Amino acid sequence: MEKVRVAVVGIGCRGQYMMEHCLLDMDNMVVTAVCDTYEDRVKWGVDAVVRHGQPAPFASTNWHDVLNKDLADAVMILSSWESHVPIAIEAMQKGIAVGMEVGGAYSIDQCWDLVRTYEQTGTPFMFLENCCYGRIEMMVMNMIKQGLFGEIVHCEGGYCHDLRDEIAFGKENRHYRLRNYLHRNCENYPTHELGPIAQILDINRGNRFLSLVSVASKSRGMNEYAKQHDNVNPALQTASFAQGDVVTTVIKCANGETITLSLDTTLPRAYSRRFTVRGTLGMYMEDNNSIYLDSDFTPEDHWCWSKNWNNAEKYLEKYEHPVWEKYLKEGLRGGHGGMDGLVYDAFIEAVRNGTPCPIDVYDAAAWMAVTPLSEMSIAKGGAPVDFPDFTNGAFCERI
Amino acid sequence: MEKVRVAVVGIGCRGQYMMEHCLLDMDNMVVTAVCDTYEDRVKWGVDAVVRHGQPAPFASTNWHDVLNKDLADAVMILSSWESHVPIAIEAMQKGIAVGMEVGGAYSIDQCWDLVRTYEQTGTPFMFLENCCYGRIEMMVMNMIKQGLFGEIVHCEGGYCHDLRDEIAFGKENRHYRLRNYLHRNCENYPTHELGPIAQILDINRGNRFLSLVSVASKSRGMNEYAKQHDNVNPALQTASFAQGDVVTTVIKCANGETITLSLDTTLPRAYSRRFTVRGTLGMYMEDNNSIYLDSDFTPEDHWCWSKNWNNAEKYLEKYEHPVWEKYLKEGLRGGHGGMDGLVYDAFIEAVRNGTPCPIDVYDAAAWMAVTPLSEMSIAKGGAPVDFPDFTNGAFCERI
Repeated sequence: MEKVRVAVVGIGCRGQYMMEHCLLDMDNMVVTAVCDTYEDRVKWGVDAVVRHGQPAPFASTNWHDVLNKDLADAVMILSSWESHVPIAIEAMQKGIAVGMEVGGAYSIDQCWDLVRTYEQTGTPFMFLENCCYGRIEMMVMNMIKQGLFGEIVHCEGGYCHDLRDEIAFGKENRHYRLRNYLHRNCENYPTHELGPIAQILDINRGNRFLSLVSVASKSRGMNEYAKQHDNVNPALQTASFAQGDVVTTVIKCANGETITLSLDTTLPRAYSRRFTVRGTLGMYMEDNNSIYLDSDFTPEDHWCWSKNWNNAEKYLEKYEHPVWEKYLKEGLRGGHGGMDGLVYDAFIEAVRNGTPCPIDVYDAAAWMAVTPLSEMSIAKGGAPVDFPDFTNGAFCERI
Repeated sequence: MEKVRVAVVGIGCRGQYMMEHCLLDMDNMVVTAVCDTYEDRVKWGVDAVVRHGQPAPFASTNWHDVLNKDLADAVMILSSWESHVPIAIEAMQKGIAVGMEVGGAYSIDQCWDLVRTYEQTGTPFMFLENCCYGRIEMMVMNMIKQGLFGEIVHCEGGYCHDLRDEIAFGKENRHYRLRNYLHRNCENYPTHELGPIAQILDINRGNRFLSLVSVASKSRGMNEYAKQHDNVNPALQTASFAQGDVVTTVIKCANGETITLSLDTTLPRAYSRRFTVRGTLGMYMEDNNSIYLDSDFTPEDHWCWSKNWNNAEKYLEKYEHPVWEKYLKEGLRGGHGGMDGLVYDAFIEAVRNGTPCPIDVYDAAAWMAVTPLSEMSIAKGGAPVDFPDFTNGAFCERI
């Protein structure tokens, strides 16, 4: 097919951002249908498509209506976390390729449902984890593949993003985070940091997540934020938020590596994905943007970061990932510094060419499973809980 | 007493460093006895005392001999980890004040033995955790006490120190770390980072450690290091090190806070104690040396550390801890940037004046207990293990 016909489901803040900054500029796809629960968002979507010089799309407030092969070859699911999997499953059943935005799962069963539906239908499925296409993440991956870090033994990551404003105005802005923070205590958004780490550690391709433990701090950030801000609903000053302010999770892998994750969204801080990779010969740490290679350093350097921190960019000249080299030559496209353009393009190209999606249903299931597993571990006082092997043993041989 | 007479036990690398950089310059104490298992180290100690213009001390290779009230008012225990507690207990029983260097415990029983001996004898006991006197740690503590960070909900710390060289040459240098790394898998050195955090969270003074989970990565760093260095004993290339390269521990406190610790000593990296404090209004992070206060920042600052990192020193002008203000006026003394002088001085002054030791036996027991608890948690696949309450309930009321 020349251009993939895409139905966009979910035109809230993320959907609007993605349409505006990425989807409507791509020359290998066309938005033929838009859908959201709310009329005004649907109208925004239609207007955006027309404003970009494309024919008015089919529009509906019912997602079942846009999952129609006469309308669309693929669906991009940008709606609330809770709706991702049901929409993805129905689309696969109807033979409509699925590009599913990220978020945690609500149950392990739901992860299995995704996997089984894919296995039964063979419909293309891709998990749209943009951070797997981050420039620094890809450079580090490139350095690892060239052996510069030695054997990898430990990684860290986090979703460290002060979302107090977004959460506090969840009701007014019809956003899904508020309800999740009131009722759930878990690593609710693990995949931005875990995606690149899982790729580095060959998860589902010779390795797998074996077990995790999660521990949550008390919840104080949202109450305090409501007290400090007059424009926030005063009920939130004393509302009982189930979600702890900081959730720390440690995953153990089949090949012996550990991964530490932090969910950290309701206290003051600057944004970070805490991307950290530790090998026997070198490391990268995002929080001070440092590459540290045994081969580059003298013993005096060992005593202090600050002489060498913020040095990661100097490695780009030599170790820029080929995907980014090409991308920069052709001109950046898409939001969030270019990652969005790359991940959406990868999905559309896989659909166009009938090639495998680079982030597949087994990746989605394993990464999203962190959320319900962490919820149970926290509830059990940090007890280790088991990861399912969604490949049922195929991970030993898959590439 | 005018000058406290001190017996120094343990004159290995740490003992020599402390005598040379701190103990022999203090005007409120005098070294009257020196002891080490090895003759050559004892001789080094005698020579050092004499070189500093003091009378030759009593010397022995048997620590029982120097625990003698005719010789010494206090003992400073700077020997191998394994010997700390037995020496401390005998000294307390003999009425000799104990300044005990840091390290993890080998069993929970041994922590109880320390506590009970102290309770039975009333002999002064201080845990010599120098990092509680770190300049930045104390500034942060000062800011917290003034309410600038709001309510504290989460802290992090680590002993992140590339010790591959020290461990690899443990046999040649008669150092205790090698044997510990071969046979134990645990958070073996928790107190440098945990001490200041415990003080911030009022542990044993209105709060306590409740439980922990620990997970260890595989062990690859030491084998690889031996392969890369011709001068290292080749047996270490394939030796089976029990100790995982990175151990992550999460502690839950009675008042709901979480603490994450990293032991990270056998992979390439720069030194860090990863000191991090998170409150409802502000934070500090050592790895990029940043203070982040809600009140100081605009929304644009939230997206990137790098605009504001390395800003902690600018807060020293306003929030320097009074102890450090005084210390800097009087001139720095002692090793490790001044911390050693402060902690040793605090101990000697408590002994001289008969006042309580600021880091007491309950602190030592709770902080050192992390080691055997982490060992059992790792062995059980990360299962949560219980902290004893070494105060038996007194923590609710103690100040």
